[in-house]
Amino acid sequence: MFLKNAWYVAAMPDELADKPLGRTICGEKMVFYRGAGGKVAAVEDFCPHRGAPLSLGYVEDGKLVCGYHGLAMGCEGKALEMPGQRVNGFPAIKSYAVEERYGFIWVWPGDKAKADPATIHHLEWAVNPEWAYGGGLYHINCDYRLMIDNLMDLTHETYVHAGSIGQKEIDEAPVSTRLEGDHVITSRFMENIKAPPFWQMALRMNDLAPDVAVDRWQICHFHPPSHVLIEVGVAHAGHGGYQAPEAVKASSIVVDFITPETETSHWYFWGMARHFKPGDAELTAKIREGQGKIFNEDREMLEQQQQNLLRWPERALLKLNIDAGGVQSRRIIERLLAAQAA
Amino acid sequence: MFLKNAWYVAAMPDELADKPLGRTICGEKMVFYRGAGGKVAAVEDFCPHRGAPLSLGYVEDGKLVCGYHGLAMGCEGKALEMPGQRVNGFPAIKSYAVEERYGFIWVWPGDKAKADPATIHHLEWAVNPEWAYGGGLYHINCDYRLMIDNLMDLTHETYVHAGSIGQKEIDEAPVSTRLEGDHVITSRFMENIKAPPFWQMALRMNDLAPDVAVDRWQICHFHPPSHVLIEVGVAHAGHGGYQAPEAVKASSIVVDFITPETETSHWYFWGMARHFKPGDAELTAKIREGQGKIFNEDREMLEQQQQNLLRWPERALLKLNIDAGGVQSRRIIERLLAAQAA
Amino acid sequence: MFLKNAWYVAAMPDELADKPLGRTICGEKMVFYRGAGGKVAAVEDFCPHRGAPLSLGYVEDGKLVCGYHGLAMGCEGKALEMPGQRVNGFPAIKSYAVEERYGFIWVWPGDKAKADPATIHHLEWAVNPEWAYGGGLYHINCDYRLMIDNLMDLTHETYVHAGSIGQKEIDEAPVSTRLEGDHVITSRFMENIKAPPFWQMALRMNDLAPDVAVDRWQICHFHPPSHVLIEVGVAHAGHGGYQAPEAVKASSIVVDFITPETETSHWYFWGMARHFKPGDAELTAKIREGQGKIFNEDREMLEQQQQNLLRWPERALLKLNIDAGGVQSRRIIERLLAAQAA
Repeated sequence: MFLKNAWYVAAMPDELADKPLGRTICGEKMVFYRGAGGKVAAVEDFCPHRGAPLSLGYVEDGKLVCGYHGLAMGCEGKALEMPGQRVNGFPAIKSYAVEERYGFIWVWPGDKAKADPATIHHLEWAVNPEWAYGGGLYHINCDYRLMIDNLMDLTHETYVHAGSIGQKEIDEAPVSTRLEGDHVITSRFMENIKAPPFWQMALRMNDLAPDVAVDRWQICHFHPPSHVLIEVGVAHAGHGGYQAPEAVKASSIVVDFITPETETSHWYFWGMARHFKPGDAELTAKIREGQGKIFNEDREMLEQQQQNLLRWPERALLKLNIDAGGVQSRRIIERLLAAQAA
Repeated sequence: MFLKNAWYVAAMPDELADKPLGRTICGEKMVFYRGAGGKVAAVEDFCPHRGAPLSLGYVEDGKLVCGYHGLAMGCEGKALEMPGQRVNGFPAIKSYAVEERYGFIWVWPGDKAKADPATIHHLEWAVNPEWAYGGGLYHINCDYRLMIDNLMDLTHETYVHAGSIGQKEIDEAPVSTRLEGDHVITSRFMENIKAPPFWQMALRMNDLAPDVAVDRWQICHFHPPSHVLIEVGVAHAGHGGYQAPEAVKASSIVVDFITPETETSHWYFWGMARHFKPGDAELTAKIREGQGKIFNEDREMLEQQQQNLLRWPERALLKLNIDAGGVQSRRIIERLLAAQAA
Repeated sequence: MFLKNAWYVAAMPDELADKPLGRTICGEKMVFYRGAGGKVAAVEDFCPHRGAPLSLGYVEDGKLVCGYHGLAMGCEGKALEMPGQRVNGFPAIKSYAVEERYGFIWVWPGDKAKADPATIHHLEWAVNPEWAYGGGLYHINCDYRLMIDNLMDLTHETYVHAGSIGQKEIDEAPVSTRLEGDHVITSRFMENIKAPPFWQMALRMNDLAPDVAVDRWQICHFHPPSHVLIEVGVAHAGHGGYQAPEAVKASSIVVDFITPETETSHWYFWGMARHFKPGDAELTAKIREGQGKIFNEDREMLEQQQQNLLRWPERALLKLNIDAGGVQSRRIIERLLAAQAA
């Protein structure tokens, strides 16, 4: 069961630049394409004529044309025309509310009438030129909630990402979790430590000494349905850490849009928005490459964790203090699911 | 459920030239081999000794020898001998009626007693030296009836085969479907059009001008259980089209033997018999290569259509005028299945 | 259902030299590792914190550390420590009795309290310097009992291994099977025959004429739960065969430890212990390579036999005299399974 009445990141624009994109989201098999005027649309990936996937077709004059027998579909899910046929009586297929914003395609897999684009979270880093963004997409074979757990408990960095962003001090620093409505915040602050390799690189690229003592912070924000944004950074020690002036720190937001596909798979849109050297495209590419490698390290762990949970469905997992971020996030999802079902 | 009391194309002779061939047809797992005197035989692919597949064995003195412990099987499904054993009491396995004719191995997967080779359709193009044939075999992961639909509605050529045999005029020409007993005929005639690339090539190879106006025809013939033969061709315009003299046309029969494997997969024996330049082996090879590419274009569409139908089993597909050929063919199959069950 | 209260070969030591080894045995998903003092241990491959596989972790100070969030597991299945956590109340996971002996890691997948290392069969060839051993491991997708059948009826050599150890005389020689408690012995003796290629090689390597008449023997020993040891060899004819002096023969033991993974897959530890030229490492490598090829020939047959048995579950297989070894071995397994269930 999924929270369907919610905005999810469905795709990156370049994925549908050349042809329609078939993608399943929250169990709904959809096709995304650019219709009239280049506006993105999404309908069920099923031609009402013979059931062919519309994603194997093409776009012509803003219409999605089935690649099997030429039925032209409109963005509302109604057949518009077909060679030699009257299409008025053809059954309609579902259409979905779609928005293109902040460099992503967003979809509302549930009741289209309830979809209000104004409820898409504001993402300052995506519109403010002081920020630069780079990211990618992974398909991961596990429940999307395991990825939320992963990102709301960063102690795993010490073990999974030992060579890049992990360090023993993460485990040792106290963690605190609090709620603000449906917003879960898990924070950890480390003072006077040595920066791990990734952050030494970031300091260097930001023209700061990489090998002096630093203060480091991680502030994870969960918002429903399944977005995790993590404020991360380091500042030269003793200048206020998270509050330090820009001139002595390197700070970023780790961006994680976690979009369910099936009960045991999801689309993971990952990236980093940084608040330093925004014009440096080479740096964007370098960070993107490093982050891609780091996030790939989680993949095997999460997919095998999923297999273990399927094998031992009766076993209850522990909910330690470090797990509080994930636990609270799941409670919000459960509450919203119950509300949706009511 | 399959029409088992019927002749299907099971294999091409070269598939069992060197060793037995294991193949499942209409849900029956069989092994084909050349027995005594080179006559083709088929029995269940199951050794009564320990259940090993006989298709992993070899043929010796006309007997099929199990490759595990040497049981020699006869073409009637009775064990003939085994080193150190008396085989009289061994349980028999099923054997199947098999015929080699017209360059194909035919099998009757049902009641052997009812198999009459005289009921195999006469194929003039396979025995008359005025014709030349070339073809191949694809394994396709979809219900064999989706392939029948595909071939009985050639409007798909406009979309799936746009670069070779498709053209807008197919969609625009009226189509008519009629029944002659269990024989379904769907015809389409196009006059005074430009030949698409494949037919321009055919005209050129037949020493005819390729770039003048032509008349084009497509006459699809369905015969149970699942054979579709399509008369196709072009003639220089104004000479009578389908009826035009040989000297101004290039005509062929598209040959489609569609043999069910499971409910969602089939063996697709495809080919083309042409009625021009029959002695030109290079032309046969060229057409075969082109047709192989064309028929491969259908594969992804059909396999993904199958997946869509499995996902939305409750959705009824449309039955438009262009679908009449497939609809009528399926009705005949349904009627014969009901008769078989009775 | 498996005989769980028994010793199985689980791994070869080099498989866990560098990191923990995840392996499923008799349906139990385990992780093997070297704990304190290098002693091998095995626990369930499931971290009680969040269900991650412990096999993705590492060993530190003799403790198995989870690679996700750092829980340190002890060899008794109790969490020992975790950064920032009190682990006393953590649920324990199962641990398994493990022994390292004769160059293998042995595991008792059942009740640990009943595991007595003294009941591991004595393997003289593994401890006596007059013998040399080489072997390997294959993962085979079939019921482990099909492999027992295979090894207790060597008539298959004539067909499956025609180019190496098979010869017609195996089929022709009488076979006898007898029981000594839970020990099944199937013997076959061939006199005055030509040695097949593998044994000609062995004679040559043992400085004996390879192309003279020989006596050949095969004595298969089944011991529960699923070990098959086969005394094999050839002697120059007329010297007593199996009883002939060492100077005129080449003799070995084919070693087969057949460890169930699931109902339809197993781990096959194969090898050969030879009683000639034990110091010749090159010969060990040569025999190992040849044997690896031979045993790989069984794989397709066994895996396809398994598929056939799944397809026709209602068919009873024959139990001929040549099958007596496998039949008796299965009876012992059935009896022990019934005793275990009681």
